Amino acid sequence: MTITGEAIIGGVQERGAAGSFKAWDPTKRDYLEPSFHMVDAGQIDRACLLAGEAFDIFRATTDQQRATFLDTVAEQILAIGDELIERGMAESGLPRVRLEGERGRTVGQLRMFAELLREGSWVDARMDTALPERTPPRPSLRYRLIGVGPVAVFAASNFPLAFSVAGGDTASSFAAGCPVVLKAHSAHPGTSELVARAVTRAVQLCELPAGVFALLTGTGNGIGQALVGHPAIQAVGFTGSRSGGTALMAVAAARKQPIPVYAEMSSINPLFIMPNALAARATEIGKGFAASLTMGVGQFCTNPGLVLAVDGPGLDEFCAAATEALSSTQAAVMLNQGIADSYRKSVHALHTHEAITTLARVEHDEGKGGAALFRTSAEHFLSRHELHAEVFGPASVLVVCQSTDQLREVSELLEGQLTATLQIDEGDHDAAKTLLPVLERKVGRILANGFPTGVEVSTAMVHGGPFPATADGRSTSVGTGAIQRFLRPVCYQNLPEALLPEPLRNGNPLGIWRRKDGALTKE
Amino acid sequence: MTITGEAIIGGVQERGAAGSFKAWDPTKRDYLEPSFHMVDAGQIDRACLLAGEAFDIFRATTDQQRATFLDTVAEQILAIGDELIERGMAESGLPRVRLEGERGRTVGQLRMFAELLREGSWVDARMDTALPERTPPRPSLRYRLIGVGPVAVFAASNFPLAFSVAGGDTASSFAAGCPVVLKAHSAHPGTSELVARAVTRAVQLCELPAGVFALLTGTGNGIGQALVGHPAIQAVGFTGSRSGGTALMAVAAARKQPIPVYAEMSSINPLFIMPNALAARATEIGKGFAASLTMGVGQFCTNPGLVLAVDGPGLDEFCAAATEALSSTQAAVMLNQGIADSYRKSVHALHTHEAITTLARVEHDEGKGGAALFRTSAEHFLSRHELHAEVFGPASVLVVCQSTDQLREVSELLEGQLTATLQIDEGDHDAAKTLLPVLERKVGRILANGFPTGVEVSTAMVHGGPFPATADGRSTSVGTGAIQRFLRPVCYQNLPEALLPEPLRNGNPLGIWRRKDGALTKE
Repeated sequence: MTITGEAIIGGVQERGAAGSFKAWDPTKRDYLEPSFHMVDAGQIDRACLLAGEAFDIFRATTDQQRATFLDTVAEQILAIGDELIERGMAESGLPRVRLEGERGRTVGQLRMFAELLREGSWVDARMDTALPERTPPRPSLRYRLIGVGPVAVFAASNFPLAFSVAGGDTASSFAAGCPVVLKAHSAHPGTSELVARAVTRAVQLCELPAGVFALLTGTGNGIGQALVGHPAIQAVGFTGSRSGGTALMAVAAARKQPIPVYAEMSSINPLFIMPNALAARATEIGKGFAASLTMGVGQFCTNPGLVLAVDGPGLDEFCAAATEALSSTQAAVMLNQGIADSYRKSVHALHTHEAITTLARVEHDEGKGGAALFRTSAEHFLSRHELHAEVFGPASVLVVCQSTDQLREVSELLEGQLTATLQIDEGDHDAAKTLLPVLERKVGRILANGFPTGVEVSTAMVHGGPFPATADGRSTSVGTGAIQRFLRPVCYQNLPEALLPEPLRNGNPLGIWRRKDGALTKE
Repeated sequence: MTITGEAIIGGVQERGAAGSFKAWDPTKRDYLEPSFHMVDAGQIDRACLLAGEAFDIFRATTDQQRATFLDTVAEQILAIGDELIERGMAESGLPRVRLEGERGRTVGQLRMFAELLREGSWVDARMDTALPERTPPRPSLRYRLIGVGPVAVFAASNFPLAFSVAGGDTASSFAAGCPVVLKAHSAHPGTSELVARAVTRAVQLCELPAGVFALLTGTGNGIGQALVGHPAIQAVGFTGSRSGGTALMAVAAARKQPIPVYAEMSSINPLFIMPNALAARATEIGKGFAASLTMGVGQFCTNPGLVLAVDGPGLDEFCAAATEALSSTQAAVMLNQGIADSYRKSVHALHTHEAITTLARVEHDEGKGGAALFRTSAEHFLSRHELHAEVFGPASVLVVCQSTDQLREVSELLEGQLTATLQIDEGDHDAAKTLLPVLERKVGRILANGFPTGVEVSTAMVHGGPFPATADGRSTSVGTGAIQRFLRPVCYQNLPEALLPEPLRNGNPLGIWRRKDGALTKE
């Protein structure tokens, strides 16, 4: 397929009317052909209006129809073939094996939501039987979840497939019956166009309204602000920086009708090494940590940017093992120039910080990331908030505490996080029990004896967490739970059977789990 | 019990340090003794900090313990006896039978949440089995909901018991394991103190931390702003005016860490009379509508402030029946002077509006509400947004449309609503089918052949709706679903069995419904 550099609005490719830009190949350090054309205000408006018009038709499809649609999107993505991987590699600098894996994850996510729809209980059907004899009589009440309306999805830079055009936000929006107006990430516009054309073909094959999906291309903040401010948009999915996410939150809150924003933004993913585990497994933990930190050039949201350990047996071994492993890391190309520049600046700031000792630091050329590990004390860390900020890339700060009490004190000071990881042996369980309540308040996922990178796509996953990890700690952006972000309840009181939606009809024609007078049943 | 006029912080009654005010008896038109003392900034801060400190202990209680606590709150409210009803009557002007009913509803709500906890599936337990042989291996993932943290609850003026100190917001917060810092409504501070002391006794009897509940007294906006801005507060429940709710939303969004606000604010609850129903039952509908409109002097959130009908057979009969019923309404005392003044002003503005014909208007003295019905055309209504605003009290606008298409056009223009009601006969089903998708987008509850006043407290109720009906259309403030407002998910990855929370342990010790590898089971 020839990449055209066009947006997709109303199912049709069209040239953006507001100037052009090119993608950058971070490996070759050169621009990629062709030019991409930025959409203007009128094009954004049209995409949103079409999404609004498509909503009632799209959400009126059966679960089976939307499941087929999601499966078709997956098939069409696979049908692009190797061109998708090659363009993705060129635009992101990510290796082939990673992008092939990510494609598998993307397709798997779409199919997972298809399965969720086929199972059917996502609709949370509830029925309270009428009690006509009661004083006052109780009416018949039936309840289901429906989509919130068109969703503006902002693709992430660090997952050009799985958190991008047909990533988790889009898949969960579609599953909920919500049209998607997608803002492509300007770092991988060609990859985005290829996937967007696959989605558009799936829309056509499934005979859905063209407004169900639109691709907007461009750079800068203007498109996002216009998109989130558009009256037809009813929710926002975003993965990116804290500044970008909070800017969209402000736009959404200032609307005449405020709308929910699900922004995944910032996390340093503390790794707690408890004393017994440290004494017993320091070298193993050090190596594992270094591997997690440098995986994908440290460009995962769940990268372990903070290590907390209690001074004592094993600490030196941990430092030595981590330092050795990190020092042998090969510097590698980062996703884009902005990320690499920011990483370089942050590492330099830590390296020269008066409260920091540098344990490991791999030098790197422009555009690349190396690896870095810094050390400080709990006292320093507690009083210096600049040390709490996320460094996007393979850099981490080890905070040495004097006791598990101090470790708990530090954890109380942390902002919201996607994950926290405990390295614990049985002798650490009592200390872990005092730490867990703090972590539950602070994070979305608590891991034991592993490392935070690697996010399973499944029913029980939480990829979320209190602000600023995400805009809304009541949600997850990965796993089946992600659909709940784009749903709201509607109750039907005494509505005639003929007018009731199928999931709420007498006799349970869909055979789904429903809550009848409070009790779950398939009756 | 002697009402002291004091706040309750840390389980202890203490005098507010920032001036005093008195409650007003709208029936006798005189101030009530004693004086109430307004809390100052330090007292607000202390209440919030204590709530924060109590959170981990409170949420670590078992469901059974919190169920007992909710039942104890209910018992202690009943134990106040008639003093509660009498003080409530004096402060609200509401009749005895209404307040006795509301007390029953309040106690019933508390017990409903106790039952929800005993059933246990509110926790939404999910377990994905480890797949160690898979490449890469899948970890063991377990998921549950926990409370978000301390909740600031703002009591409503129009339900001095059921949406007040121990009302639905408080009951659902407690059920979720969230401490409550309650801002009493200044219109019924004595009623609030009595109930707050009952809640405090329940906290003591159940040996919970005193910070689980605090009562803040005062007037004006300062307390609310400080409360919502306090870092320990993690969510807000509010029932009141649109201006009050949106002001709190702005404070919550501007925090360093933004928090969710559940404000129930404004709704005109359109009643659609479809042609066949109108032709067949005009007089009956007119009478029923008038009764719904004037119930409780029109001071329900679900009061039918808008009627939409198609010009044709029955319209004159509907107008005649409604006008006759409304004209014989006795003017009655409203909840407080502010509400009565605002009602009087709004009715006058409609009565003198150039696009309005007055069908019925019951004159009323100061402090009272009468009844009023106005008529306009769809053309006028579509172009005059001032006619869309809520009039709190027994006033409604009939909008006469030329066709069901025009009726649909008007409905598309409406803001978010708590309810929409359809008066339909079988011959109206086709027209209803075209209207229902619009209503689903606009409202939280759709009723057929009834009237919107009267909100059942049950599993399938939605008392919510898109902005501005509420701040967050993804929620309900009435019924068991209200607990979900104050919950967020946490995932545990490979956590040792000994450290797992009870709902997620092997063997399902609580015997609750859980989702195992996606499928619901009690295994």
